[in-house]
Amino acid sequence: MAKRLIPAFNRILVEKIVPPSKTTAGILLPEKTSKLNSGKVVAVGPGLRDKNGNQIPVAVKEGETVLLPEYGGTEVKLGDKEYHLFREDDILGTLHD
Amino acid sequence: MAKRLIPAFNRILVEKIVPPSKTTAGILLPEKTSKLNSGKVVAVGPGLRDKNGNQIPVAVKEGETVLLPEYGGTEVKLGDKEYHLFREDDILGTLHD
Amino acid sequence: MAKRLIPAFNRILVEKIVPPSKTTAGILLPEKTSKLNSGKVVAVGPGLRDKNGNQIPVAVKEGETVLLPEYGGTEVKLGDKEYHLFREDDILGTLHD
Amino acid sequence: MAKRLIPAFNRILVEKIVPPSKTTAGILLPEKTSKLNSGKVVAVGPGLRDKNGNQIPVAVKEGETVLLPEYGGTEVKLGDKEYHLFREDDILGTLHD
Amino acid sequence: MAKRLIPAFNRILVEKIVPPSKTTAGILLPEKTSKLNSGKVVAVGPGLRDKNGNQIPVAVKEGETVLLPEYGGTEVKLGDKEYHLFREDDILGTLHD
Amino acid sequence: MAKRLIPAFNRILVEKIVPPSKTTAGILLPEKTSKLNSGKVVAVGPGLRDKNGNQIPVAVKEGETVLLPEYGGTEVKLGDKEYHLFREDDILGTLHD
Amino acid sequence: MAKRLIPAFNRILVEKIVPPSKTTAGILLPEKTSKLNSGKVVAVGPGLRDKNGNQIPVAVKEGETVLLPEYGGTEVKLGDKEYHLFREDDILGTLHD
Repeated sequence: MAKRLIPAFNRILVEKIVPPSKTTAGILLPEKTSKLNSGKVVAVGPGLRDKNGNQIPVAVKEGETVLLPEYGGTEVKLGDKEYHLFREDDILGTLHD
Repeated sequence: MAKRLIPAFNRILVEKIVPPSKTTAGILLPEKTSKLNSGKVVAVGPGLRDKNGNQIPVAVKEGETVLLPEYGGTEVKLGDKEYHLFREDDILGTLHD
Repeated sequence: MAKRLIPAFNRILVEKIVPPSKTTAGILLPEKTSKLNSGKVVAVGPGLRDKNGNQIPVAVKEGETVLLPEYGGTEVKLGDKEYHLFREDDILGTLHD
Repeated sequence: MAKRLIPAFNRILVEKIVPPSKTTAGILLPEKTSKLNSGKVVAVGPGLRDKNGNQIPVAVKEGETVLLPEYGGTEVKLGDKEYHLFREDDILGTLHD
Repeated sequence: MAKRLIPAFNRILVEKIVPPSKTTAGILLPEKTSKLNSGKVVAVGPGLRDKNGNQIPVAVKEGETVLLPEYGGTEVKLGDKEYHLFREDDILGTLHD
Repeated sequence: MAKRLIPAFNRILVEKIVPPSKTTAGILLPEKTSKLNSGKVVAVGPGLRDKNGNQIPVAVKEGETVLLPEYGGTEVKLGDKEYHLFREDDILGTLHD
Repeated sequence: MAKRLIPAFNRILVEKIVPPSKTTAGILLPEKTSKLNSGKVVAVGPGLRDKNGNQIPVAVKEGETVLLPEYGGTEVKLGDKEYHLFREDDILGTLHD
């Protein structure tokens, strides 16, 4: 059975979104639409502590879609699924429809 | 459909301005006028947090024209348009008519 | 007789978990389930001191299962058992069933 | 038409002073008098923010003559004039008659 | 006559423990039990000063057995005995029976 | 006409002292007395600002003789005289008769 | 005439102790007793300033014997004597009989 991971400090567990190379209607997508490196936030850490010892909650929320840097992150396998761990400040932004 | 990106922390989403190589009247511009590396601010992040946990708003505003450093920034494609992400302190200044 | 180690500051003593290559029923496990680099926390240090001199207790607890980085940590032999020392912020997260 | 640049944070826009190689009376100046790397301050940024979020105004003022470091600075073209951007702490000093 | 050394700031003077290669009964010990790099604390400095100028006493006490990093430390000879100086935060932990 | 330079922040303008290779009575000095790298302080900056925005005055005063590091400093020519700019913390000490 | 040097900030002026290679009775000393790199403190600076602008006095006192690091320090010649300048935190400890 797959284990559940609670990221440490300000780390974020992300499931990368594999961009579809065809639309649901079967039309091949041109290269430019498939180049976005994004992922779905699966779990977030409790955050770092500031100078006064207070926890700074992570700004990104579980379920959000995030824009990821091209390099970096740590690959993690839980059960038979592949995830990536990023520190909060490596996340470039959040994506909304 | 193109997604909307909210930059993280003090990041800024910029659409680079391609300098016209001709005036509207069709006169070719000399090299020196076209060399400015600028862009239009499309979205700004909520800002970094200071030592006391307060958010420091980004000084640059949406819609402003910014002077960009020659190198750096992260290329991002949203829909079929190309943008660049910069951290606020990489922005060299704002341009006004 | 094996000595007992109390880690200094925010260090954590971990006994690495050797992933079983077969189930208890003797079935060989595919590669993907065995790739997780984890360990059991055997001892934790008292934590670092903040700017005001207060001790910040280590977030990870004795007995927890932690996800470890692929590189780093210091190998330690106590009696005839092998352990690893990590700083708290090198721990990627905690694993739960 | 030339755009106006407001430098970001503690940046300073400088127009470099080209040292005259002759006096107004036409006498050639020896090498030693022409070696000073200076410029006129054309625009200054609003300054950096300190730890409490207060803006620290830039010490150098518009119109002052500054001594510049031999290397560094970013070349900027506005209209058909060439300027350089420096961070306040790269400025070596101010020059007075 | 051997001089006495008072370590500066958070430095610790350690006498390395040479692991016995035989038990007292003369039985040769296997390699794994002798691999621990430890030492006895002979003298400790007064500690570093925090931001408010208060001295932070060194956590390790004279007479304790410490686990040392494989590399680092400064060799010191006092009289005809050899010692090593380490900064407090290079100490990996303390060993107890 | 020579310009006057006010150094920025904690910079110090120094006129290097060329060590005499003879005494006033014409006796050649041995090498060891001429090896000291010193200078006279010609101008001092207003000092750096601390965390609370207060200016920390430069400890070295105009007219003092300072011991300079062997390397570093920026050469500056004002009129036909050569000076060097150093940051306050590069100064090794002050020399007194 | 030899000049007097007042070290800047937390610097310490040290006269290195050349270890005797014979006892006063003429007996050659074995190598191990001569290996200690020590010096006598000749002058100390006023100390660094903390975050609140208060001066932190140097812990080492004039006349004390200090243990020096093998490398580092700046050679200074005053009159015909050779000294070394060290920053306070490069001093390994003080030696006492």
